[in-house]
Amino acid sequence: MQERLGEVKAQVQAALDGAMAGLPAGELADAMRYACTGGKRIRAFLAMESARLFGLGDAAALPVAAAVEALHAYSLVHDDLPSMDDDDLRRGLPTVHVQWSEATAILAGDALQSLAFGLLTEPQIGPPEARLALVRGLSEAAGGRGMVWGQALDIAAETAAAPLDLAAITRLQQAKTGALIQFAATAGAVMAGKDPGPLADYARNLGLAFQIQDDILDVTGSEAETGKRTGKDGAANKATFVSLLGLEGARDKARALVRDAETALDAYGEGAGNLRQLARFVIERDA
Amino acid sequence: MQERLGEVKAQVQAALDGAMAGLPAGELADAMRYACTGGKRIRAFLAMESARLFGLGDAAALPVAAAVEALHAYSLVHDDLPSMDDDDLRRGLPTVHVQWSEATAILAGDALQSLAFGLLTEPQIGPPEARLALVRGLSEAAGGRGMVWGQALDIAAETAAAPLDLAAITRLQQAKTGALIQFAATAGAVMAGKDPGPLADYARNLGLAFQIQDDILDVTGSEAETGKRTGKDGAANKATFVSLLGLEGARDKARALVRDAETALDAYGEGAGNLRQLARFVIERDA
Repeated sequence: MQERLGEVKAQVQAALDGAMAGLPAGELADAMRYACTGGKRIRAFLAMESARLFGLGDAAALPVAAAVEALHAYSLVHDDLPSMDDDDLRRGLPTVHVQWSEATAILAGDALQSLAFGLLTEPQIGPPEARLALVRGLSEAAGGRGMVWGQALDIAAETAAAPLDLAAITRLQQAKTGALIQFAATAGAVMAGKDPGPLADYARNLGLAFQIQDDILDVTGSEAETGKRTGKDGAANKATFVSLLGLEGARDKARALVRDAETALDAYGEGAGNLRQLARFVIERDA
Repeated sequence: MQERLGEVKAQVQAALDGAMAGLPAGELADAMRYACTGGKRIRAFLAMESARLFGLGDAAALPVAAAVEALHAYSLVHDDLPSMDDDDLRRGLPTVHVQWSEATAILAGDALQSLAFGLLTEPQIGPPEARLALVRGLSEAAGGRGMVWGQALDIAAETAAAPLDLAAITRLQQAKTGALIQFAATAGAVMAGKDPGPLADYARNLGLAFQIQDDILDVTGSEAETGKRTGKDGAANKATFVSLLGLEGARDKARALVRDAETALDAYGEGAGNLRQLARFVIERDA
């Protein structure tokens, strides 16, 4: 799995570099490339592996993987802005607005979102109907009922009178990070015109487990390991899976979710080995 | 033409309201709807009229018109932010970040961009290949080589050592406002799978004339008429078509561009009457 992840990382970086090769030179292009560098590339991995389940090769899945990572990169750049989460460190480097300016960060994020949708039109992905289904799916996952809505809930929670309860945190995270993870994990089924149901179940459980592990690392991890500021949630007195369930309760919950994620993959047999391993990796990672 | 513009306004507002009907209630949805209210709807008009040139009805063109207006609305919300143009008045109302917050303005803009791309997948637009061509076209027009690049150039010009010359201002505006106007005006040809060349020529001239008139109104117009702050360019000592050509020179240039825009429409005969009238309207408007 780690080997495949490394392979995906290299491929998706090349695809993103290629997609941005024609940009006019300047701060905007520099900031876009900077934002698309590094990262775990878990979403790209999900897209590439889900395509494999349906016999679709890397060439078909690569623009989809690059699109998801461009979309994800834009969301990080905007979430890090002073008026949002106000983060100065990301992937071990200064965030885009620190490195350049708020204006450049907003614009780079905006252009990366445009780029993501453009990538989904690449002919190598497959039949036009499949590409349109991906565009529609990304629009839903990214927009005002998906990722952006989740971020809006997160911002609103900061000034709410009472901390969120478990149901509210779960709903928030399913929108904020879950929707895009689900888009990535179901991409292969959408490309092949098959039922995305089992992959959606897998992704829902995986996405929550991923977020719980993020909350755990915010408490137990170091900035050197995670490449971002830690201890922020506790300092902000923010409700998280850890504050609601305790450290051990959160770990138990994440393990149960990973088991459910693996079970959802039973429909695909041996071919889903890498996706199973990814689910376990998600809660074992320390970064 | 004015009658048709009124009809388009009503239709596109209904389409946008419909597209946002399913959003979860809250500040984000409120801000998205607020940003999509009012405006001249010139881009929607261009999309609807260019579709008519190729025998395509309003039902087919309407999601495209709504997409362009959603994209345009997002760009205004982000351009108005304090770290960008820092405007507090738009369409006669407080800008989104004044009415709510910077975070909500950034998120509402982000979600409107997602919405725009989703609208272009609507089956009523036509064959899948046509819809994909629109998605690709909007991605190009909106992104790091189009509208966002133009805004980046505009921001950079504010801190540049010397004011921009005519060639630089023209290039900037062709990206910042011209690219989306061109997308809208060529949409009908793209939907019909026909040569968008003449419409692109029309749009290029129209877009520049439109911008020159905006620069003129910034000097001669009142806030009551335009619904936005005027006199900003002069106060910022910003190079504009008026500062470079003088008021009369700018008016002459706009008139010449409108003549060229009309000439480009000769290929379409009588059917392009509304587009011809729009070109004249663009330089006669006082708002």
